[in-house]
Amino acid sequence: MYRFQCDYTEGAHPAIMQRMIETNMEQTNGYGLDPYCDSARQKIKDLCECQDMDVHFLVGGTQTNTTVISAALRPYQGAVAAVSGHINVHETGAIEATGHKVLPLPSEDGKIAAAQVEEMCHAHWTDGSQEHMVQPGMVYISHPTENGTLYTKKELADLHEVCRKYGMLLFLDGARLGYGLMAETNDITLADLAKYTDVFYIGGTKVGALFGEAVVITNRALKKDFRYMIKQNGGMLAKGRLLGIQFDTLFTDDLYFKISAHADELAMKLKKIFLEKGYSLRYDSYTNQQFPILPDSHIEKLKEKYVFEFWEKVSDTESAVRFCTSWATKPEVVDELIRDIMEC
Amino acid sequence: MYRFQCDYTEGAHPAIMQRMIETNMEQTNGYGLDPYCDSARQKIKDLCECQDMDVHFLVGGTQTNTTVISAALRPYQGAVAAVSGHINVHETGAIEATGHKVLPLPSEDGKIAAAQVEEMCHAHWTDGSQEHMVQPGMVYISHPTENGTLYTKKELADLHEVCRKYGMLLFLDGARLGYGLMAETNDITLADLAKYTDVFYIGGTKVGALFGEAVVITNRALKKDFRYMIKQNGGMLAKGRLLGIQFDTLFTDDLYFKISAHADELAMKLKKIFLEKGYSLRYDSYTNQQFPILPDSHIEKLKEKYVFEFWEKVSDTESAVRFCTSWATKPEVVDELIRDIMEC
Amino acid sequence: MYRFQCDYTEGAHPAIMQRMIETNMEQTNGYGLDPYCDSARQKIKDLCECQDMDVHFLVGGTQTNTTVISAALRPYQGAVAAVSGHINVHETGAIEATGHKVLPLPSEDGKIAAAQVEEMCHAHWTDGSQEHMVQPGMVYISHPTENGTLYTKKELADLHEVCRKYGMLLFLDGARLGYGLMAETNDITLADLAKYTDVFYIGGTKVGALFGEAVVITNRALKKDFRYMIKQNGGMLAKGRLLGIQFDTLFTDDLYFKISAHADELAMKLKKIFLEKGYSLRYDSYTNQQFPILPDSHIEKLKEKYVFEFWEKVSDTESAVRFCTSWATKPEVVDELIRDIMEC
Amino acid sequence: MYRFQCDYTEGAHPAIMQRMIETNMEQTNGYGLDPYCDSARQKIKDLCECQDMDVHFLVGGTQTNTTVISAALRPYQGAVAAVSGHINVHETGAIEATGHKVLPLPSEDGKIAAAQVEEMCHAHWTDGSQEHMVQPGMVYISHPTENGTLYTKKELADLHEVCRKYGMLLFLDGARLGYGLMAETNDITLADLAKYTDVFYIGGTKVGALFGEAVVITNRALKKDFRYMIKQNGGMLAKGRLLGIQFDTLFTDDLYFKISAHADELAMKLKKIFLEKGYSLRYDSYTNQQFPILPDSHIEKLKEKYVFEFWEKVSDTESAVRFCTSWATKPEVVDELIRDIMEC
Repeated sequence: MYRFQCDYTEGAHPAIMQRMIETNMEQTNGYGLDPYCDSARQKIKDLCECQDMDVHFLVGGTQTNTTVISAALRPYQGAVAAVSGHINVHETGAIEATGHKVLPLPSEDGKIAAAQVEEMCHAHWTDGSQEHMVQPGMVYISHPTENGTLYTKKELADLHEVCRKYGMLLFLDGARLGYGLMAETNDITLADLAKYTDVFYIGGTKVGALFGEAVVITNRALKKDFRYMIKQNGGMLAKGRLLGIQFDTLFTDDLYFKISAHADELAMKLKKIFLEKGYSLRYDSYTNQQFPILPDSHIEKLKEKYVFEFWEKVSDTESAVRFCTSWATKPEVVDELIRDIMEC
Repeated sequence: MYRFQCDYTEGAHPAIMQRMIETNMEQTNGYGLDPYCDSARQKIKDLCECQDMDVHFLVGGTQTNTTVISAALRPYQGAVAAVSGHINVHETGAIEATGHKVLPLPSEDGKIAAAQVEEMCHAHWTDGSQEHMVQPGMVYISHPTENGTLYTKKELADLHEVCRKYGMLLFLDGARLGYGLMAETNDITLADLAKYTDVFYIGGTKVGALFGEAVVITNRALKKDFRYMIKQNGGMLAKGRLLGIQFDTLFTDDLYFKISAHADELAMKLKKIFLEKGYSLRYDSYTNQQFPILPDSHIEKLKEKYVFEFWEKVSDTESAVRFCTSWATKPEVVDELIRDIMEC
Repeated sequence: MYRFQCDYTEGAHPAIMQRMIETNMEQTNGYGLDPYCDSARQKIKDLCECQDMDVHFLVGGTQTNTTVISAALRPYQGAVAAVSGHINVHETGAIEATGHKVLPLPSEDGKIAAAQVEEMCHAHWTDGSQEHMVQPGMVYISHPTENGTLYTKKELADLHEVCRKYGMLLFLDGARLGYGLMAETNDITLADLAKYTDVFYIGGTKVGALFGEAVVITNRALKKDFRYMIKQNGGMLAKGRLLGIQFDTLFTDDLYFKISAHADELAMKLKKIFLEKGYSLRYDSYTNQQFPILPDSHIEKLKEKYVFEFWEKVSDTESAVRFCTSWATKPEVVDELIRDIMEC
Repeated sequence: MYRFQCDYTEGAHPAIMQRMIETNMEQTNGYGLDPYCDSARQKIKDLCECQDMDVHFLVGGTQTNTTVISAALRPYQGAVAAVSGHINVHETGAIEATGHKVLPLPSEDGKIAAAQVEEMCHAHWTDGSQEHMVQPGMVYISHPTENGTLYTKKELADLHEVCRKYGMLLFLDGARLGYGLMAETNDITLADLAKYTDVFYIGGTKVGALFGEAVVITNRALKKDFRYMIKQNGGMLAKGRLLGIQFDTLFTDDLYFKISAHADELAMKLKKIFLEKGYSLRYDSYTNQQFPILPDSHIEKLKEKYVFEFWEKVSDTESAVRFCTSWATKPEVVDELIRDIMEC
């Protein structure tokens, strides 16, 4: 059985493992105050073409989302998000556990538009009894989204604009950021993210690291005392250098971008074959997650050799499923999968 | 200007004020441990035809909802509610502030059906990664709803059933309970509520009291230590007897029911005239809240003499509005309003 | 039995009850947006000799403390308080329930000194791993304290100073403020409170009202969106005018001060007799709470006619107890009590 | 410079790194549902001589403490702990952030006694207004404590007893458990912990792993839905097998115990020399943390070659400091340190 069920089925890219072995017996300070974290921070600043930012390394995505959101919001504020957003669906109420409502906006493809945010905010601020309702305090988006879709630079700039207008922060969840940045249709750079968002993170867990998310903060108010927030939320890893070593390696010789491109290329090969085979696509993704709609009989057949994720019933005889590639996916297995699909 | 904007524009029913004056200089214990609270508790138990219940008096609705819900749920559980439910919309995220997500179900008229709850729970419990999602822990309904609509006894029993099936509590918000119980289409009694819910409350604030909500708990686990919860949530009124006096008066000589019936009758007169006038109704309410759809020109005309609530735009020229009657509404003003409507 | 156990055993001052009766059938807006609240706000501003402040009316003390503290603190900050402070001991963890630690300072008499706060803050900010500890974010004091003791203006100014130095807010709990302001040893005015604190409240519940606390905010940042906080914490009373009417009455013709002075005078009569009788005092209070240390045999004797509070065992044969007077205490009963004490 | 400042200055024991390299490219399920976690779980059960327990793997100590404590307590309950306990001092209010008060007990050496707990509980449950105070819901202890001290089996059994009596859970923080279990004065086994506590954890971060804490739950109620709690608290590592691999390695061929014994032996060598040198000990520790009191001049001298932690000023010329050994400490460096101490 070969697993395409998600992008975190293996360990870490060998270069990372190698670096961890090499540094294993060194003694360093803990809690992110070590030379490896410093080096990784500087590399990220350079890539973002911005020196006036803070970079912190946290362990996982849920932790990162709760830490950032609870640091950013006042108690009566909520985070605007797509109804399908990770924080609204798949974090066991972790955001609410910090006291904040997620304010869902309808979304077909995982994205939300500036016009939707504008409408929600306008409605809130013109309501006479606004204090009886949660105040929109920030906008949370993912790039790529849960559905593999991407924002354009224009859409991002528009969200930035509406956030400025209503005094909200813009937060971008980049758990799969590499796969987004390297997608053939993507026109957003790290420098754009530093410019248009108040805070975003560069996912490591799903892009080649054992674990780890690099949080980039450009908003001045949010920078203040952020390490207290990390500690309180359980994100201050004692051996923090493990995060520094991993991100330093990922941003050496463009490793992060190369392995992301690798995954996207294999995903595009799959997408091409899905379309050739006549499958519809549940979402039009150019990133490492692909969502074809297959006859249930084909699904059964492929499940004999491959693990992939059931997404949803589409009709009596068809279902959408998810195939993920990653930095670790082997091209020869994709070729084999393609042959098996063609034979369905 | 006469106000039909809500059901809490006046003070309290004169009988309550009278009783508060009479008892004003008496000395009693605080925090609900006084003879007036005891007497009111007993009257409520008798009306519910159930002695094995706990009755607590809290100050307001938001406080009551947060106290009950946070007492009932484990940290990772949420409260299932209509998307239009008070806890989902009009409490500034008070439920989330206690750490719990509100799990919204679509609703056209403020009600949710057992089948919807069944579907949500089934989906949750058959999902392989259920622990990544908020667990449905209770069902929250209002009777009447925010839209003036009512559950039938059958619908209530069905909700009870599905809650039992999935180990969830059923909680009924009765902020306007009197107006529901006395509606001509209502077939639910206090005894039914005691039987089918785990916890419900009898609203005082909107039904003749200065303030106060009587929480009735039949669920054994929820009874435990509930006074700690009240105190922590700021609901343990120092001069708790004020709540006892009010509810004791409301449940003397059927005052609660009589004044509720009064409001419903006047609301029905209004409903009749709305229909005669050819207005549509946004919701088909038999309780003290009426939601006619009026031409905007009629609205403008009536606003010269009456205060009522804008609900929503329905078309370019028409809007839904809300008229509330209450225990305090004067029949002669309703007659005048009716004349003014007919002349529009 | 006559009750000296606390200062909230009766209803409200008759002038308040009279005003509530007179206004009972008036229709007003809810939620504190009515003319009575406006009038009371203006009177308080005038008494504080400060127009640039916000005044809000909440229902009870625990609610007020949680609302103010959770509005004032960032998630990783705590409230510095005397170890015996109300928020540290008698609110069932309500502050912690909003996510904040109470940082206790030792105190013999309920007061804390600027030097103690200075020491705690200095220790925090010079600790290299400060982000592993709760950051002191505000100072909470009571005037009078739980022990009936009072701050001097100088002590208040010093606390103000140290709060400024470390960027902390100063919050004064005035649940019994009237009894403090009218004490013969007090040198603090409402204008001083407005000047030296960022936020304080004027207690109504324990000083003649049925319920209610008037929160006065001078700190600009804290003013912002405070009504959202009130609503979320369950403190936005639907019939908010009840609070306005009460405080407006209390601040008409100096009623608040007169009734407080009444209670203090009776307490001083008791204090004099305790000393004459040879009792020690657990705390040297000049306010309405008196803490004499009595032989247990005297306590048993007095308990036959009076209710008062056991405070703590002092020796094998003596205990400290608490006697409270209030706006409602009858002079003739105090005289009788004095006779009974003398006969012990 | 050689670091004795803490027990997490290096990476992981080489056997762990080796195992992670070997398994790196394997594909497994995420979130702890993999064969390595299963194997580690079984080994822990066997060591605890108990099969009826749940074992979960979390990432770090703060996260583990908040997850366990918030799972165990009702909203109005608090965790009883030594005033010096990690949760009371060094977790930035993480426990309070989940809504719970830490109820501190005085402690000279980091331990608390059953008699202290008994006294606190007795006081709580016999207080007439108990619902105004936080209810003691669990007891939190560390073994070894922050001060390197150890509980005896008798003391543990007594704490177990008092917890049973008052319906409280007993939770043991074993962040440095290995160093405790292998101490020459220790008489507690893993089987004892399983027997006497409701939940405890076996620390990995400070005992040879890159990171990770193994939570052992024997209490039936606490087992329920614990994975939801882990997820909500950000502790469900995507590549959960990393935790399984580490603990499986640690519990293969007694590695965990051997490396702990190694650290303790070196610490005992240091302790011996401190005493020979005439230094007092701040705490009498038989584990890997040693707290000698040195003349400040000696401290300055040793700081030229070694990093160790300042603990507290003891007199004008002396301070307590902390030296930690670990699985990674080199015997030859300890020998060198001993020579340098003798030459001070």
